[in-house]
Amino acid sequence: MWTTTIYPRFGDTDILGHINNTVLAAWFEQARNPIFKIFCPSLEINYDTFSLIMAHTDYDFVGEICFRQEVEIRSGVSRIGTKSFTVYQEAWQGGRLCAKGHAVIVHYDFRQKISTPVPEEKRLLLAEHAVQEPS
Amino acid sequence: MWTTTIYPRFGDTDILGHINNTVLAAWFEQARNPIFKIFCPSLEINYDTFSLIMAHTDYDFVGEICFRQEVEIRSGVSRIGTKSFTVYQEAWQGGRLCAKGHAVIVHYDFRQKISTPVPEEKRLLLAEHAVQEPS
Amino acid sequence: MWTTTIYPRFGDTDILGHINNTVLAAWFEQARNPIFKIFCPSLEINYDTFSLIMAHTDYDFVGEICFRQEVEIRSGVSRIGTKSFTVYQEAWQGGRLCAKGHAVIVHYDFRQKISTPVPEEKRLLLAEHAVQEPS
Amino acid sequence: MWTTTIYPRFGDTDILGHINNTVLAAWFEQARNPIFKIFCPSLEINYDTFSLIMAHTDYDFVGEICFRQEVEIRSGVSRIGTKSFTVYQEAWQGGRLCAKGHAVIVHYDFRQKISTPVPEEKRLLLAEHAVQEPS
Repeated sequence: MWTTTIYPRFGDTDILGHINNTVLAAWFEQARNPIFKIFCPSLEINYDTFSLIMAHTDYDFVGEICFRQEVEIRSGVSRIGTKSFTVYQEAWQGGRLCAKGHAVIVHYDFRQKISTPVPEEKRLLLAEHAVQEPS
Repeated sequence: MWTTTIYPRFGDTDILGHINNTVLAAWFEQARNPIFKIFCPSLEINYDTFSLIMAHTDYDFVGEICFRQEVEIRSGVSRIGTKSFTVYQEAWQGGRLCAKGHAVIVHYDFRQKISTPVPEEKRLLLAEHAVQEPS
Repeated sequence: MWTTTIYPRFGDTDILGHINNTVLAAWFEQARNPIFKIFCPSLEINYDTFSLIMAHTDYDFVGEICFRQEVEIRSGVSRIGTKSFTVYQEAWQGGRLCAKGHAVIVHYDFRQKISTPVPEEKRLLLAEHAVQEPS
Repeated sequence: MWTTTIYPRFGDTDILGHINNTVLAAWFEQARNPIFKIFCPSLEINYDTFSLIMAHTDYDFVGEICFRQEVEIRSGVSRIGTKSFTVYQEAWQGGRLCAKGHAVIVHYDFRQKISTPVPEEKRLLLAEHAVQEPS
């Protein structure tokens, strides 16, 4: 598991006074940067150096998030399959769980447009961040 | 079911050359404007006039979306429960299904901070947009 | 001059109840799609097909923009220089001017990383959309 | 002057491979959070506690910003007028100046909808962050 600190932006709020739910997609994406780094250490992203494509994301909104306080995103790898893996993420603010979700990421060859097996050395690196989801 | 046309923005693309997956959250939200209108016809949103809160969203990314062509979002109500309902949405581009997902929306009293039953007249309006999800 | 209709998104609002000022950057960008089309008719954007780079943008916020009503963006070309041109844009809602601004766009060779003259045939197409700024 | 570190998000890039210019609006806004805090220390934003409204922003894009490296936003107050002030901001990446701009912020009474003088104690706090713009 790793943590990422987010400082909410004024524009992240909405007319109801809290962080708009669509913003979580961007926050969770930022918190997955370490995953991008495992697969593309230089972060020089192109079709030859990069091999991840997003298949699915979901978000459960369990509490309001306010503007005035930083948010901690906790992320971990909850599943490693043959050609894909799942990142489980939570957003915490002031000691309260506010949102949680998953990203199912497929190992992908952008040139051939086919999914491919996650290489063994990447599986080991992902496994270092394994988490078990709360049941 | 109703449809909403989206004209992609340059900034919606990402370094891999297609629409970034996080953008779908904003597109599907825009396409739910008719739902907001059912519950708050004036769209003058505040704690007294508005009664919807987002509980869950999910997104399946099944095809690339490119910048150069408009996108059609098809939305419908796939479930009407006692205190919540589900909107099912699809993004189509050039005759291809590119993404689909759900939004589970709770009927909510922002003053008392409790979920409340969906009023009967609103259930009837939602039912006019009922869709059955493809199995 | 050409016009683009924008349907505000719930997440475009902020805690003060109106459209957040940063959103105008994305709206004005969407409204410049016809400019992209002049320089890259296929909209298949890459370093060989595309030749525009943003040098400057500015925004004057002269009135509140609310969520509940569509916004009309009026855009035109207010200056055509040798290697750059300026797009002047206004956002109107309900008959009121709410924001205006400029984008200074440089004609650019992404391979050589140098600015280059705007080709004559593109100048003619830009000139079809010439506007004079209100003084 | 104060500095804010930004970690670019994958979705901040665009099809040309760099950070999209519209993203700077959100980054500079985040970097102005200390200004919001001067005027509303609790950051509990509403029409009674908050007194700032955006009048103008501008952005000069002087160099490409890439995804792979953090960005430092340097911000300072470059002008304090009677009823408004100006924040000058720069974005640096890897020792290079990439963008710079201004935000002209008006002291405002949201109830009466009129601009009002910047209170003396706030002027003193702003003055602590005074910067002189490079000529």
